[in-house]
Amino acid sequence: MAVASQMSSKFRNFSSWFDKVLYEARIVDDRFPVKGFSVYMENGTFILRALQRMLEEELARTGHIEMLFPLVTTDELFSKEAEHIKGFMSEVFVIDKAGGKELERKLIIRPTSETIIYPMFRLWVRSHADLPLKVHQSVNVYRHETKATRPLFRVREIPWNEAHTIHATASEAEEQVREAIEIYRKVLNKVGVAYLLLKRPDFDKFAGARYSIAFDAWNPDGRVNQVGTVHNLGKNFAKVFEIEFEQRDGRRDNPHQLCYGFGYSRVIAAVIAQHGDDHGCVFPSTIAPVQVVIVPIYFKGQEYSILEYCRRVLERLGNNIRVRLDDRDDVTPGEKYYYWEMLGAPVRLEIGPREVAEGRVTVFRRDTMEKRVTTLEEVNDYVKKLLDEIDRNLAERSRRMLEAMIGDAQTLSDAKQLISSRRIARVEWCGRLECAEVIKENVGGEIRGSRYDIVEIPKGGCVACQQPAKEVVYVARAY
Amino acid sequence: MAVASQMSSKFRNFSSWFDKVLYEARIVDDRFPVKGFSVYMENGTFILRALQRMLEEELARTGHIEMLFPLVTTDELFSKEAEHIKGFMSEVFVIDKAGGKELERKLIIRPTSETIIYPMFRLWVRSHADLPLKVHQSVNVYRHETKATRPLFRVREIPWNEAHTIHATASEAEEQVREAIEIYRKVLNKVGVAYLLLKRPDFDKFAGARYSIAFDAWNPDGRVNQVGTVHNLGKNFAKVFEIEFEQRDGRRDNPHQLCYGFGYSRVIAAVIAQHGDDHGCVFPSTIAPVQVVIVPIYFKGQEYSILEYCRRVLERLGNNIRVRLDDRDDVTPGEKYYYWEMLGAPVRLEIGPREVAEGRVTVFRRDTMEKRVTTLEEVNDYVKKLLDEIDRNLAERSRRMLEAMIGDAQTLSDAKQLISSRRIARVEWCGRLECAEVIKENVGGEIRGSRYDIVEIPKGGCVACQQPAKEVVYVARAY
Repeated sequence: MAVASQMSSKFRNFSSWFDKVLYEARIVDDRFPVKGFSVYMENGTFILRALQRMLEEELARTGHIEMLFPLVTTDELFSKEAEHIKGFMSEVFVIDKAGGKELERKLIIRPTSETIIYPMFRLWVRSHADLPLKVHQSVNVYRHETKATRPLFRVREIPWNEAHTIHATASEAEEQVREAIEIYRKVLNKVGVAYLLLKRPDFDKFAGARYSIAFDAWNPDGRVNQVGTVHNLGKNFAKVFEIEFEQRDGRRDNPHQLCYGFGYSRVIAAVIAQHGDDHGCVFPSTIAPVQVVIVPIYFKGQEYSILEYCRRVLERLGNNIRVRLDDRDDVTPGEKYYYWEMLGAPVRLEIGPREVAEGRVTVFRRDTMEKRVTTLEEVNDYVKKLLDEIDRNLAERSRRMLEAMIGDAQTLSDAKQLISSRRIARVEWCGRLECAEVIKENVGGEIRGSRYDIVEIPKGGCVACQQPAKEVVYVARAY
Repeated sequence: MAVASQMSSKFRNFSSWFDKVLYEARIVDDRFPVKGFSVYMENGTFILRALQRMLEEELARTGHIEMLFPLVTTDELFSKEAEHIKGFMSEVFVIDKAGGKELERKLIIRPTSETIIYPMFRLWVRSHADLPLKVHQSVNVYRHETKATRPLFRVREIPWNEAHTIHATASEAEEQVREAIEIYRKVLNKVGVAYLLLKRPDFDKFAGARYSIAFDAWNPDGRVNQVGTVHNLGKNFAKVFEIEFEQRDGRRDNPHQLCYGFGYSRVIAAVIAQHGDDHGCVFPSTIAPVQVVIVPIYFKGQEYSILEYCRRVLERLGNNIRVRLDDRDDVTPGEKYYYWEMLGAPVRLEIGPREVAEGRVTVFRRDTMEKRVTTLEEVNDYVKKLLDEIDRNLAERSRRMLEAMIGDAQTLSDAKQLISSRRIARVEWCGRLECAEVIKENVGGEIRGSRYDIVEIPKGGCVACQQPAKEVVYVARAY
């Protein structure tokens, strides 16, 4: 099997590999004394901000307006939508004291912002001329996870972007689902994250939605990682929050709504987990805190000329590349290699006496660990092309890995076998909740949904009951 | 008096002027149903982000690392520093439930992040080689204000940047105080906000600090608006949070610390309040959501040629100016003028048949409400220079206003007269707390501190007790 041949330590023991990398690459320090709340160190923060910029650029380009809404809502607002409150009540943080005194009205900290934003939409939306209205914000949301927490994957403080849109018609709302998916797809492609685009089964849709589409990224331990979701809310929330607009013909109606969320910390987790290796992080150039590191290989008596040559290389690389000259003199080149490989810098330039003498530069690429040689004159072009190639290679490698992880199963025991080998099982399903439960119980993974991007037609019977299948679905363990 | 001659409505009735402008210019919508929590609409959000970028650029340039720390701390950590807890305990929000159950340990929501960041500093700082360490984050902090809230000025959800630094020696810490002041000074200058740079009296310093420096911006209602503060913490927090480092000579010691905060919402308030007028906002180009608006003056039969000419102007202005062509055809030019004046666009270009015929552009500047004319060929250069000139003029006008607001008072009744005319009183003070209290009681304003940027030597007696004065201090009402 293709998967087994790639057994680096991240596949053998994901947890310990991941914890080590997060800490050594200065992504997250998880020693903060409140469970589920981590500190984003400089590289984690850099990547989070870079992702945020990329996504927000796409959102702005497609007419989304950035606004900022409060952290809290009232009990009354939070409880308006019956399904929604059922879905989130068990994990909300509640403030009921301030300054040592009980608050008159307790406050609910946002697990997501529908109940905070929609009362404002009610005030703002008057007529069809106000629509579509597309609003977004990048904020933290808070969910009291009762399962075991894991930094970036399953935390209680979750940095994300949430967008909320309002539309006059059902077809415009459908069109918006496609736009939202395209936005997330672009950003995930830029960082080479491979995922399954799935329509969630009804029993697993967003609390209060008509249907939910999700991006499930693969993970070395076989547990899929939901990095983004797009929900078509229909008129459901508009009705309970009394959002109304006047149509062209003068009649009043409730508009259609969407909400969609992109989990920054989940995406960072996917980038590290999908691309990383035994040496640490491997970042695509789009988000690498340092894209190119120059390491001088000092040789006694030639320190000055080597460093001077390094500076010329630095100058050639210009201002459009995030480059660092690691000129520390109390650290060996080997230690620097270790350090920058851990930090995932996509390209390393090694410069010793030979490079100086020959006007060359030795180029190490982090993704394949291969070395090549270029010249001082060509170093800028060479590096730029190489960065692009690395990005492409990471994306392609990750996509192939996802494909290799998926296996077809005709029986529950085959499916179970796949899940316990940390893979994703593709099965046929009759669509009934009972069978979903049978699958979950017997297979050890859940139905995550059917493909939204392509059509897969079932040919046989449900893996659980053998009745005619209605859908091809993907079964996996999940974060 | 110079002040009286400038009596626009913001001076006559600041509150109602400010509320109207915030809403009509789409800065903040204050109708959110939780007191002290506002919604930042698109222009408020744009300006907040622009300020954040400006500040963060300066912080990065001076070696500050961006990290992100959790929203919450534990009761135990929060209570470590005795003065600090005394200063903040009466206004912290407390979470003691989650998912319907009591938490084992209640959580304190940050009113500021010393007690969240310093436990991490304890883990990270080992030796003099780790110092200086300069960290910052832009986040919201939460304070349960018991006084009347006012959007941007006095709120319970406060967007700010907080920096925290650690230094090996007292003199390096002193040097850092100056660097921090210089960073804030640069950003405030870019948006033309005029302020007094004051060393706070001991009784008003930050809870747990050795001393505090503050930027107090003037406000039309005479109440000063603290937009930034820089605190030298000495070794106080390092001792209680057990932060230690090994000095060059091998001895262990507690380092010196600083923290400093820049209030984004307070700065937005200052920009609007200081520069605004009866027509609405007047934004400096550095943060204006739209720097230049083009308004076509349609003339029957010439709509096409006018719009075509507007597009040529748009093209000439290029991509480095935030320009908007307001080509709505269901709104009159007069309504557009009203709208864009309210939104504070620094420059408006008016283009009608005459401009088209003569190859000219009529240019309106928002700060002085004057019109000039330039040519199509020169419009780019003209506008760029004009934007700079507007920025300079706003800063200069605001600085002069601050000077005019300050009056010297030798007696308590003179000082009281100044404060009740919405001005700032400069008085001499003996330095004793009793006299500060006499001043507060009799004058209606508080001692805000003595100038930090210039030396002012008292020549006579304390305004309260007539004993020899030690300091020249500024007395004002404050937000």
